Amino acid sequence: MLDGILRQWRQRADAALARALPPTDEQPRRLHQAMGHAVLLGGKRMRPLLVYASGALFEVAPLVLDAPAAAVEFIHAYSLVHDDLPAMDDDALRRGQPTVHVAFDEATAILAGDALQSLAFGVLADTQVSDAIRVDLLRTLAQAAGVAGMCGGQALDIDATGAGVRLDVAALERLHSLKTGALIRASVRLGALCGGADTAALEALDRYARALGLAFQVRDDILDIEGDSQTLGKTAGKDIAQDKSTFPALIGVEASRARLDELAQAMRDALEPFGERANALQALGRLAIERDR
Amino acid sequence: MLDGILRQWRQRADAALARALPPTDEQPRRLHQAMGHAVLLGGKRMRPLLVYASGALFEVAPLVLDAPAAAVEFIHAYSLVHDDLPAMDDDALRRGQPTVHVAFDEATAILAGDALQSLAFGVLADTQVSDAIRVDLLRTLAQAAGVAGMCGGQALDIDATGAGVRLDVAALERLHSLKTGALIRASVRLGALCGGADTAALEALDRYARALGLAFQVRDDILDIEGDSQTLGKTAGKDIAQDKSTFPALIGVEASRARLDELAQAMRDALEPFGERANALQALGRLAIERDR
Repeated sequence: MLDGILRQWRQRADAALARALPPTDEQPRRLHQAMGHAVLLGGKRMRPLLVYASGALFEVAPLVLDAPAAAVEFIHAYSLVHDDLPAMDDDALRRGQPTVHVAFDEATAILAGDALQSLAFGVLADTQVSDAIRVDLLRTLAQAAGVAGMCGGQALDIDATGAGVRLDVAALERLHSLKTGALIRASVRLGALCGGADTAALEALDRYARALGLAFQVRDDILDIEGDSQTLGKTAGKDIAQDKSTFPALIGVEASRARLDELAQAMRDALEPFGERANALQALGRLAIERDR
Repeated sequence: MLDGILRQWRQRADAALARALPPTDEQPRRLHQAMGHAVLLGGKRMRPLLVYASGALFEVAPLVLDAPAAAVEFIHAYSLVHDDLPAMDDDALRRGQPTVHVAFDEATAILAGDALQSLAFGVLADTQVSDAIRVDLLRTLAQAAGVAGMCGGQALDIDATGAGVRLDVAALERLHSLKTGALIRASVRLGALCGGADTAALEALDRYARALGLAFQVRDDILDIEGDSQTLGKTAGKDIAQDKSTFPALIGVEASRARLDELAQAMRDALEPFGERANALQALGRLAIERDR
């Protein structure tokens, strides 16, 4: 039942992304194709699913949520393209596919990322809600994507990579709360804003989203140690090879698993007031914690 | 008199940019500093001046125009940072200063550009106009920045560089109408939208902005031949060295000058209905054509 809904939303997200992308048979073709390739590499569509699930709490029609769902995935996709660049993480493989600068070239990858970011805001500006809500959506996404969110977190990550830098747990949590957490929180907030959620609901959902974002990252760190490259679709063991600060490295694998349990409880607590209507958000929380890729 | 107004607006723009930039003494410092460096390299502030001059036609308070003025300059600045990267134009110098990836590093330059784009939309979302107009502003900027605008033009430029590609004049004009023209047109439109301009006024101003954008580029091409690196603050003769399609290369310097005269007339014609109120826009048109850097 829940699986069916998630599958349906994933299909909606894929369709919304395909509709919003520029046609690959029109000039400049190479740029358009690279953007399409980038979005295909996004994968699980976790962020769009959060938009649909959060909006569903307030009975927002999925049709209305297509725009914010596509917008957050475009931001996510662009960030992967730029993070994979030789000057950044220098990754050749993502989800078992060549990354954008490998499949195309570096200049096209930079540009495709840039254009995907513009597209995210363009799509979001056309969401079928009131102008007041639209402005809220756009402001939320801009904050989550910029220095106080994703870009700021990526900068902290660069500062903390190599050269014997060792973060403490608080600094690592802050890094991830920006780098991946901000966009996950924005995804949940966008869906709720479309439904006219009040401050109390927005705050409860934000507690859920904070826990989810952190859980997602802790699980990622554990998978880097325990997963295999085949299943992951990317190179396992890379964090250790790059001497990155990770939760298992700082507190050990067992304590990391215990942290996941705490975060799962935090998610359940935050969603409690919403009762069964929050089942989809609960399921997404479990997915983040139990996934093997 | 007019010089005084332009100087005043330039100061307003600089102040608005400084206010919106993240503090360089806060983490992540390197990213914040790189963003500041990028914005300093922007230079003439042509796009913010167009916002103020266009808004002034409709008696919009300069205070209201600060946000869109900063937004277009942030987009412009980010595009320069990414265009200068080794994988793109590989420029070490801009306005006599080291480019961002030279002064900092490539990863920081990519990220600073990304964060400046987010910041542009964030600033614009806070413009002190109605929500309906805000959404129009945001939609206008997203279109101008993305595949149907600046990024699309940059992709066409990459496709047309090297390997014996020779564009015809129509293709070259199309390239520039996207690469630089789209953001110049958006600048003029944003100011007018803040003033509640009607369709007829928006269309007349768009004719002006199209001619201005093209004139700006034709002048750029002539300066690459006739200017010296010292005055330009960048390497002269680069177009020829890279075998780029330019107006002088395609139609000769004399015909390029004649084209500038035509474009100057087109600007005067487009602004005619606005009378003396359009003096500042007229002056900016002349600046674009007569500048020596």
